[in-house]
Amino acid sequence: MFSIRTRAPGSYARTGTLKLAHGEVRTPAFVPLATKAVVKTLEVREAEALGFDMVLGNTFHLFLTPGHELIRTFGGLHEFQRWDKPIITDSGGFQVFSMGHGTVADEIKGRAAQFVGERSGAILGIEEEGVTFRSYLDGSTRFMGPETSMEVQASLRSDIALVFDECTPFHADREYTARSTERTHRWLDRCIAWHAEHGPEGQNLYGIVQGGVEEDLRRASAQEVVAREYLGGIAIGGTLGETKDQMFTVVEWTIEELPEGKPRHLLGIGEVDDLVRGVELGIDTFDCAMPTRIGRHGMAVVPDPEKRWRVDLAKARWKESDEPILDGCPCPSCEPGYSRAYIHYLLKAKEQTAQRVLTIHNLYYLQRLMAELRDAIDEGRLPAAAAAVRAGAAPWELAGAR
Amino acid sequence: MFSIRTRAPGSYARTGTLKLAHGEVRTPAFVPLATKAVVKTLEVREAEALGFDMVLGNTFHLFLTPGHELIRTFGGLHEFQRWDKPIITDSGGFQVFSMGHGTVADEIKGRAAQFVGERSGAILGIEEEGVTFRSYLDGSTRFMGPETSMEVQASLRSDIALVFDECTPFHADREYTARSTERTHRWLDRCIAWHAEHGPEGQNLYGIVQGGVEEDLRRASAQEVVAREYLGGIAIGGTLGETKDQMFTVVEWTIEELPEGKPRHLLGIGEVDDLVRGVELGIDTFDCAMPTRIGRHGMAVVPDPEKRWRVDLAKARWKESDEPILDGCPCPSCEPGYSRAYIHYLLKAKEQTAQRVLTIHNLYYLQRLMAELRDAIDEGRLPAAAAAVRAGAAPWELAGAR
Repeated sequence: MFSIRTRAPGSYARTGTLKLAHGEVRTPAFVPLATKAVVKTLEVREAEALGFDMVLGNTFHLFLTPGHELIRTFGGLHEFQRWDKPIITDSGGFQVFSMGHGTVADEIKGRAAQFVGERSGAILGIEEEGVTFRSYLDGSTRFMGPETSMEVQASLRSDIALVFDECTPFHADREYTARSTERTHRWLDRCIAWHAEHGPEGQNLYGIVQGGVEEDLRRASAQEVVAREYLGGIAIGGTLGETKDQMFTVVEWTIEELPEGKPRHLLGIGEVDDLVRGVELGIDTFDCAMPTRIGRHGMAVVPDPEKRWRVDLAKARWKESDEPILDGCPCPSCEPGYSRAYIHYLLKAKEQTAQRVLTIHNLYYLQRLMAELRDAIDEGRLPAAAAAVRAGAAPWELAGAR
Repeated sequence: MFSIRTRAPGSYARTGTLKLAHGEVRTPAFVPLATKAVVKTLEVREAEALGFDMVLGNTFHLFLTPGHELIRTFGGLHEFQRWDKPIITDSGGFQVFSMGHGTVADEIKGRAAQFVGERSGAILGIEEEGVTFRSYLDGSTRFMGPETSMEVQASLRSDIALVFDECTPFHADREYTARSTERTHRWLDRCIAWHAEHGPEGQNLYGIVQGGVEEDLRRASAQEVVAREYLGGIAIGGTLGETKDQMFTVVEWTIEELPEGKPRHLLGIGEVDDLVRGVELGIDTFDCAMPTRIGRHGMAVVPDPEKRWRVDLAKARWKESDEPILDGCPCPSCEPGYSRAYIHYLLKAKEQTAQRVLTIHNLYYLQRLMAELRDAIDEGRLPAAAAAVRAGAAPWELAGAR
């Protein structure tokens, strides 16, 4: 299901192709979120025109609404959201545990390291069988365990399903992380058992490596996942550290344990510099809310390493600016030549169009970045391309970086 | 600037072409609202792909934000919103007076006939010079009179500007309406005087016929407007009555007074049956918030005369429906085959995409309706086409109605 085309010398980076039930994914690739059966502000099908081969749906959210039973009656998520290219579905573990662990999402991005306790008490119990929680929609008591997650993903008929895991927070101590990781491995086996018997034809199952920031736990978790030959690929999840350096140290420990032949997905990571570093470490696919989320908050991705590759067009300094969103960008949002003043005005007037325009720009930027990195790997010039990105080159300028 | 191609026998209906500074408008035509320099949920340029030749911007809203001075520095509204086809701008009179007259918008649609008094006290004074009001944005005191409106529209550089008028509410008595209409005529002359001296090259000025629902006042107002040869076209505004029959009686009185050679715009009217009747009465262009507004409220335009040509997809009855938005509709929103269940789900999940999808469908429907009515007039089969619409035919079925 995965074939490697080019290996970059002196790096873990590679290009390849994922052959899935609904088509091929060129790797390394960024996978936009269609969490709730829609790429926020777009139609899912628009992701294809932007150059994407796959989108990511979310088991937890779709389980709560509209419900996997309804989606199954439509033949699956592809039919429901009208997208006939590959879909990967997250298992719901991250979302279920986020409700209880508070700032887990922030922690994974390295933004918070303080224990904030349980939030809203949405988790009613974490047990061997699974997790009981209160629905954020209607307050009803719901349960999700490995088999539930697999069943939901079977109903969604995604091309790639992920196993149900516990995403341990950064504030968890070594002992909690160790126990949690062991339970995640038991859940892994239950997911495989369910999937082997009931999984829909053509659906690949990915395992998830956990283990927090402890080297031995990470390596052990990777080895456990690698040992399950049933798995079609391997995802790296959980707390990756407080800093970007720590994050990629954790990724590298994991990569060192993985076989070359299976595809690797890095969960929830998608900043421009992180994508470059992830590619260098041999990650094949990435997903992240960043491009769509910051677009809805008025921010555009731009080649500015000093400003985390983003500019906030909601700021008053753009009120009269005739500067384009990003000079030279060939994306569908930049092509008409909107001024920053116009986008700023639309944001202030709370017109949805601004969020959509920025979402399209941001997604295009990441897609183009990945396409250019693929070309750079295939043409033996990844180091120059990576250095150019870090120095502030736009994706479409990378072909010239040698 | 206006040429008539075909006159429908036994009716006032005609097809023609408005030749404007930024291109041609095929008439009769529906003009989508780009009130605040954006077609809500779309980019303005998308109106072209939907088949529209012109959009309508609003003087009042753009005066308050981002301000006509800013738009002027960009070269006008075309440059600011990146739309190089014709623009008509409403004068702001309707919006200024809506703040004081309360339910004027509802009344114009015949939905309310009761005096509700001043709302929110936003109008601070209506005087011969103009209107002083409080900005809904920041509470600041602002003034708009005929010259202000003309100056704003000159800055916007619209292809068609409308004169500043008072839109009298239905609850106004005959005497108020008479006095108001006379003032509107004095404002008309001030608009013409300003425009003749300062109006941008290529901008056409339309007069507005007022006079409430009193036949003599309407006819007199029409005659006053007709007498101003400077005007490039004539709009019909104000309270048109409590019922659709009364509305079109008022329109017909007006039409009887108008010369054939000048284009006529009917302000704020755009229901499917009203468009057909307006075309039969010789209206050349229409604008209305209906298709975009009901789209944002979850409604799709459908060929159902019993249900005011709309279906509410937010209703629970569509929760599991595999029915398409509208079977057989060739619009960009129906083409992917979304189920009503999917759109219902997106609406409930408050995903903007649903509003956008419905807005596109609704606009396409009205555009296609007008295109088919034009063909019907040109081919001498308007009566059959109009009867088919009233019997529940979709626009794309009209070519077969003979």
